[in-house]
Amino acid sequence: MRISVNDLTSLTRKAIVSFGYTSDEAEIILKVLMFAQLRGNNQGVVKLIGSGIPMREGNGEPVTVKETTVSALIDGNGTHAMLVMDAMTDRAILKAKEHGMAIVGNFNTTESTGALGYYVDKIASEGLIGFAYASAPFMTTAPYGSTEPLFCTNPFAVGIPTSNDPFLLDMSTSEIAYYGLIEAKTAGVNVSEGCGFDASGAPTTDPAQIMSGAIKAFGGHKGSALALMVQLLAGSLVEADSFDNESDNAGNLVMAIDPSILTNKERFENENSEIIERIRSAKRIGSKNEIFVAGERGYRFKDGVLESGEIDIQDNLLSKLKEVAGE
Amino acid sequence: MRISVNDLTSLTRKAIVSFGYTSDEAEIILKVLMFAQLRGNNQGVVKLIGSGIPMREGNGEPVTVKETTVSALIDGNGTHAMLVMDAMTDRAILKAKEHGMAIVGNFNTTESTGALGYYVDKIASEGLIGFAYASAPFMTTAPYGSTEPLFCTNPFAVGIPTSNDPFLLDMSTSEIAYYGLIEAKTAGVNVSEGCGFDASGAPTTDPAQIMSGAIKAFGGHKGSALALMVQLLAGSLVEADSFDNESDNAGNLVMAIDPSILTNKERFENENSEIIERIRSAKRIGSKNEIFVAGERGYRFKDGVLESGEIDIQDNLLSKLKEVAGE
Repeated sequence: MRISVNDLTSLTRKAIVSFGYTSDEAEIILKVLMFAQLRGNNQGVVKLIGSGIPMREGNGEPVTVKETTVSALIDGNGTHAMLVMDAMTDRAILKAKEHGMAIVGNFNTTESTGALGYYVDKIASEGLIGFAYASAPFMTTAPYGSTEPLFCTNPFAVGIPTSNDPFLLDMSTSEIAYYGLIEAKTAGVNVSEGCGFDASGAPTTDPAQIMSGAIKAFGGHKGSALALMVQLLAGSLVEADSFDNESDNAGNLVMAIDPSILTNKERFENENSEIIERIRSAKRIGSKNEIFVAGERGYRFKDGVLESGEIDIQDNLLSKLKEVAGE
Repeated sequence: MRISVNDLTSLTRKAIVSFGYTSDEAEIILKVLMFAQLRGNNQGVVKLIGSGIPMREGNGEPVTVKETTVSALIDGNGTHAMLVMDAMTDRAILKAKEHGMAIVGNFNTTESTGALGYYVDKIASEGLIGFAYASAPFMTTAPYGSTEPLFCTNPFAVGIPTSNDPFLLDMSTSEIAYYGLIEAKTAGVNVSEGCGFDASGAPTTDPAQIMSGAIKAFGGHKGSALALMVQLLAGSLVEADSFDNESDNAGNLVMAIDPSILTNKERFENENSEIIERIRSAKRIGSKNEIFVAGERGYRFKDGVLESGEIDIQDNLLSKLKEVAGE
């Protein structure tokens, strides 16, 4: 059904607060979830109907365990990844503005950061180039040549400022995101062919069977190498665990680079817009009526407030969300 | 036929020197070409039989046009990309060792850097994490949804130190590298299906037709977004040109990060080796007998000297190489 962005925002805020978050914390989680929801990304409000948002029992405050002028490593102390990642993003922006570039990572956060695009969009909106990587010890995805789940879906994102909206690349290195499986299962539909294997290693399109088997790494050996890169950058480099379903120690990494340490910022942003415009106007294949350019879908926050309008949402998802929100 | 690494090295050195490079310059180009050749990467000695190595008429010395403690932008002044990129790599290593991280880029180099893996291997061999990106205004590759060549093959590479050989990811964002087309054409064979289009936009496996048409971006919309990312980072950010076959102004970008600004270096390297070992031992699909792990193929330089041994080389390629070398 259709729902106004305002109503969905209120409902989502209510659902988040019901888990015990302060109103400041709830606003951060709300922005991350709505960013994804309004872009048709499967890291949106579906997270509220599973185990993705509730707070971990007995979590502490995030603590900085190592710091230099250009870097920081944070022990998340069981805090939700969205809250830690949002603070890390702000810190990377500050450090990059002062020193030209910065890298900030964490271990020991719970659950996922949601759409990494949110954080690199925040960086790019400050005129900086942003990179983000996330990993978790939860094994869902098989490397190329194997059917054994070892990697998490290991997403990464890149945000680059233009004279209009930032260029945003936000992708899992798995053929489908884990929440894509949850969405398909909730909707009672199969996923596309070639997304994964069942527990015996046979190809299947049933999302539940892929959950107990393995998602395929995207893009053959190249995509699988990217998944391994993320495992090293957002796992090992930030002291998070790898390959251990029993562990809660997930890791994230964010980088920010000020383009003005290399070139003129305005020239850079204008040329980026021209390049994107040229790609968008490329000769189309047959009946395809648009060329995909990362980051152009979706609503945006203006001064921290969502644009208004209406969006589609699954009936099933909406009624479960109302339950969580206590409506 | 089989040739000893020593003989191929001598022949390659001779061919490079025949273009007028000094012996110091020739050693750099030699290492870059042999790194690729000995890994079965198509950025190897095949470059000597085309227009990839000859010097540009009237080129000047590279000049630093902007510099901070963590960055530098270089005007290549028409110097060959391999020479400029090698010097930029050394500079990024020095700056990262001193300041934790660094980014160095150039515009206005000629031809391609060759295998980007060479440069990130050099960075990772110093215990740092390396990223490299290369672009050129020469249009060969169509974005997802189009058959119009706009991107160059836009490769990027990542090198991460381990307690053994570095993890190396080195990939073009096109379905096949341009030198892969040259190799196939030289060998008189077709390429795999799904690599590209002819000039009318119809799918073809003929390498010559793809050269006058377009290579496909790899991996659907995700790969195409990665190609665009490289265009912005190694094109616009470093003041190189985009989308102009008449322009010689190609760009490259290299980054180095010292992992010890976030974590203990030894722990990081050991854990990276363990992660890679776990991936390598993953349950295999059917008859596949190895799991691809980036960077494990090929010979390595020990103290600047190539390991010895023998490798296969196409007869056709070898005889053309001998011609260039004047043998």
